Amino acid sequence: MRKISVCVTPNLLPLYKNDNQIVVVVDVLRATSSITAGMASGIAKILPVATVEECIALQAAGYIAAGERDGKMVEGFTLGNSPFDYMDEKLKGQTIAMTTTNGTLAIHLSEGAKEIVIGSFLNLSSVANYLATQDADILVVCAGWKGKFNLEDTMFAGALVEKLQGKIDVDCDAAVSALYVYQAAQVDLMMFMEKSSHYRRLKHLDVIDDIAFCLSVDHFDCVPVVQNGKEIVLKEL
Amino acid sequence: MRKISVCVTPNLLPLYKNDNQIVVVVDVLRATSSITAGMASGIAKILPVATVEECIALQAAGYIAAGERDGKMVEGFTLGNSPFDYMDEKLKGQTIAMTTTNGTLAIHLSEGAKEIVIGSFLNLSSVANYLATQDADILVVCAGWKGKFNLEDTMFAGALVEKLQGKIDVDCDAAVSALYVYQAAQVDLMMFMEKSSHYRRLKHLDVIDDIAFCLSVDHFDCVPVVQNGKEIVLKEL
Repeated sequence: MRKISVCVTPNLLPLYKNDNQIVVVVDVLRATSSITAGMASGIAKILPVATVEECIALQAAGYIAAGERDGKMVEGFTLGNSPFDYMDEKLKGQTIAMTTTNGTLAIHLSEGAKEIVIGSFLNLSSVANYLATQDADILVVCAGWKGKFNLEDTMFAGALVEKLQGKIDVDCDAAVSALYVYQAAQVDLMMFMEKSSHYRRLKHLDVIDDIAFCLSVDHFDCVPVVQNGKEIVLKEL
Repeated sequence: MRKISVCVTPNLLPLYKNDNQIVVVVDVLRATSSITAGMASGIAKILPVATVEECIALQAAGYIAAGERDGKMVEGFTLGNSPFDYMDEKLKGQTIAMTTTNGTLAIHLSEGAKEIVIGSFLNLSSVANYLATQDADILVVCAGWKGKFNLEDTMFAGALVEKLQGKIDVDCDAAVSALYVYQAAQVDLMMFMEKSSHYRRLKHLDVIDDIAFCLSVDHFDCVPVVQNGKEIVLKEL
């Protein structure tokens, strides 16, 4: 039977990684939510880059630059890390270069996987349905916060485990734990999030609307994937 | 207000460590349970060592050698990693040299903390009561399994957070998550453990009785601590 595992931060990835797995990268607040929102809204491609410097170089080459460090938009960039930034009509058909504190880094560290899928609450069921039709083991990589465990990505991992259990063997203690965290949280994800360090860290940045939106389950029906190891596109289903 | 944090595996310790914290090392299955059982039963001192080689050297110097690798007693040692081994009348007043796959390693990696306390379900309330009277922040270091997240140590971390919440600020997403995992598990810890990778890994080794005993909450009233950075003794309270 296929297996699903959860890696609670990219710092533990060497212990979980193998090239036969489909990796689902999740950074609920806010990179993978923004990517999902943007791709669903018509952005053609997103190039995830690990450093601000790479993003500036792509900006100089004509791409739209997007991203944050420590929750704030990088100076001189066009887009920050709010999903609302990415749902702009003007971005339809465009290619974006993006760098974030945790999310794009987690994508880079997952290189070498059989496939890399972008997951968020916004496209939870789409991702679960896609994974259910595949034949590889699954590893959920939580972007965390600067290497540490975080609540919101663990909640998403648990939600995905819940969707897939029965079809896929949950042979991983972090996956079992994530499931219980999600089951405690699901009655009111937003109320649960108020207990998180991320909420406390970001609330002064006036991003409560972002957080509420990022917790909207199944707002979009799409599966962004990393193509050729370098660009995020929508999977044709 | 004082804080409690949880480090879900020693591999993440560099992100959480500082020398002003009291560290509680937990390896429910089975190192810190065995240490607790042994110290409560009259063992004078336990020298936790990281490698089998160090333990063999101490054995040659006259100490009783104890420990396991991959759940099995090291050949030539006197004691394995079952808590029942450590509750032998003959060990009263003795000094033991001990090495285990995860637990003694976690103790070594925690060196430099303000104090290192040995925690397990067997002495949960004793540890919680002791910590409640101290004035430093607390870090629970889960021994995990070869660097990976594990269920039983997370459950213990959650149980300790539950005992201390209200008195101590839970400013850590891993601590919040551990609390929810424990609350899901507490109705029947043993039934919950059957979902864990450790249970599946160890059940063929005929250690189900050990697991049940290690989940006995408050079987002993004692607080083992690491003294002078090298030997475990009972804290005089």
